[in-house]
Amino acid sequence: MKNRIIFFVSDRTAITAETLGNTLMTQFESVKQERHVIPFIDTEKRALEVRDRINKVSANSEERPIVFSTFTDDKLREIISLSDCLFYDLFNDYITRMEADLSQESSHVAGKSHGLVDRNSYESRIRAVNYALVNDDGARLDHYEMADVILVGVSRTGKTPTSLYLALQYGIFPANFPITDGDLDNTQLPKAIKPFKDKLFGLTIAADQLSRIREERRPGSPYASLRTCQREISQVEEIFQLEKVPYLNVTSISIEEIAAQIRLTRDLDDKQF
Amino acid sequence: MKNRIIFFVSDRTAITAETLGNTLMTQFESVKQERHVIPFIDTEKRALEVRDRINKVSANSEERPIVFSTFTDDKLREIISLSDCLFYDLFNDYITRMEADLSQESSHVAGKSHGLVDRNSYESRIRAVNYALVNDDGARLDHYEMADVILVGVSRTGKTPTSLYLALQYGIFPANFPITDGDLDNTQLPKAIKPFKDKLFGLTIAADQLSRIREERRPGSPYASLRTCQREISQVEEIFQLEKVPYLNVTSISIEEIAAQIRLTRDLDDKQF
Repeated sequence: MKNRIIFFVSDRTAITAETLGNTLMTQFESVKQERHVIPFIDTEKRALEVRDRINKVSANSEERPIVFSTFTDDKLREIISLSDCLFYDLFNDYITRMEADLSQESSHVAGKSHGLVDRNSYESRIRAVNYALVNDDGARLDHYEMADVILVGVSRTGKTPTSLYLALQYGIFPANFPITDGDLDNTQLPKAIKPFKDKLFGLTIAADQLSRIREERRPGSPYASLRTCQREISQVEEIFQLEKVPYLNVTSISIEEIAAQIRLTRDLDDKQF
Repeated sequence: MKNRIIFFVSDRTAITAETLGNTLMTQFESVKQERHVIPFIDTEKRALEVRDRINKVSANSEERPIVFSTFTDDKLREIISLSDCLFYDLFNDYITRMEADLSQESSHVAGKSHGLVDRNSYESRIRAVNYALVNDDGARLDHYEMADVILVGVSRTGKTPTSLYLALQYGIFPANFPITDGDLDNTQLPKAIKPFKDKLFGLTIAADQLSRIREERRPGSPYASLRTCQREISQVEEIFQLEKVPYLNVTSISIEEIAAQIRLTRDLDDKQF
């Protein structure tokens, strides 16, 4: 197997380079990868140091390193591009095309997307996280008017991490509420969330998966047993179907996919902090 | 001001399209934007529906809509590309070049990056979030051996959201610990975290900003007063300098930038869940 060293380099956070670069590399799975993120390369001196580092790595590797970059500054990009590497700048190619298509010059300002954002958006996300923490696991019942979405499901189906992801990534205000024995046995939604039916989104999961996750928390407990998990999952799915609550089985998908599905279903796709 | 409608379309989550597309659009600020994320377009039927939607929007707009896409499937990409829009696929151009550069065919598998990930990585992130929640605000003192980083700072400097972001995005195990009056007055690090000095990272912020944030929580309190905030910030920065704790002023930067700086400083850039 070929071993490739991969660099994500940018004048700001390198998040965009890392995101798209990782996506692209998943298409070449047989390439064994070692990854390095190099953010904040915003002076020529730093860029030259990175070029030296890449060249050294290249001299010691069988294969040329791969560099994914997103530079708004032409000079910095050029310095890195002259390293001994396979070089992909994920920015310049498009900017040039877009300037032509939009008949408009780009502003060439670095780091607009993940840096130096206006303070309001930072605070909106912090507020959303605080909201998520305060409204976790049915802890409060008097704030649901403010919720963008209320996640429901039995214990340990990923409600909390999903809430936090929605808050941090998109500034969405998420609450979450557990569905527990009494309601499961009566095949009904908890009273507290019934008035907010159009905000609900259900999470469910394969019973064996749930059992394994619960075992980590309370080993050997009835709570973690496969039988309990099977019963609870079957009951909660019946409630979701009866009450027409949209829901998603999260067994083999990522937090990003869960979040994308929730945004789509609850029409939050244009919520931008 | 020109009004542009922007679509992010993909056969999976569309996160990559959204991330790079948003970054690109920040270079054209004078374009007023309305954004729609359209994930999970994985059949020809759905792709044709999206094409109809884009064409309808185009017919009702002065300006052609902009579409950013990431399709691994050639047929689906082609359907969308024939919409009446400015079309930028952020995937195909690079895949073609990379196949040549790497002398290897790509796997053309959809959604490897943000979907259908192996269960281990999902659970690593969930575990990291649980770790962050349990080790928030100095709640536990016996788990710091496991921490990848321990964030320190006075109250309300963004320790909790930053911890959660590091956990969710990168599977990093973050703890955080508040620095409070006693330690501030003695100009020293809290005892509990002293043994873990090589894991510490400090957050600080402009005093007026901090005062405003605290006012939201406890309006009119001494805790929120500008004078208190000025004193605490100046004391905590003195501690960071004396104890050589790397730290960052988060006043006008984003969570992504804070996270990038922490990963860089604490050498966590290749931590991948």
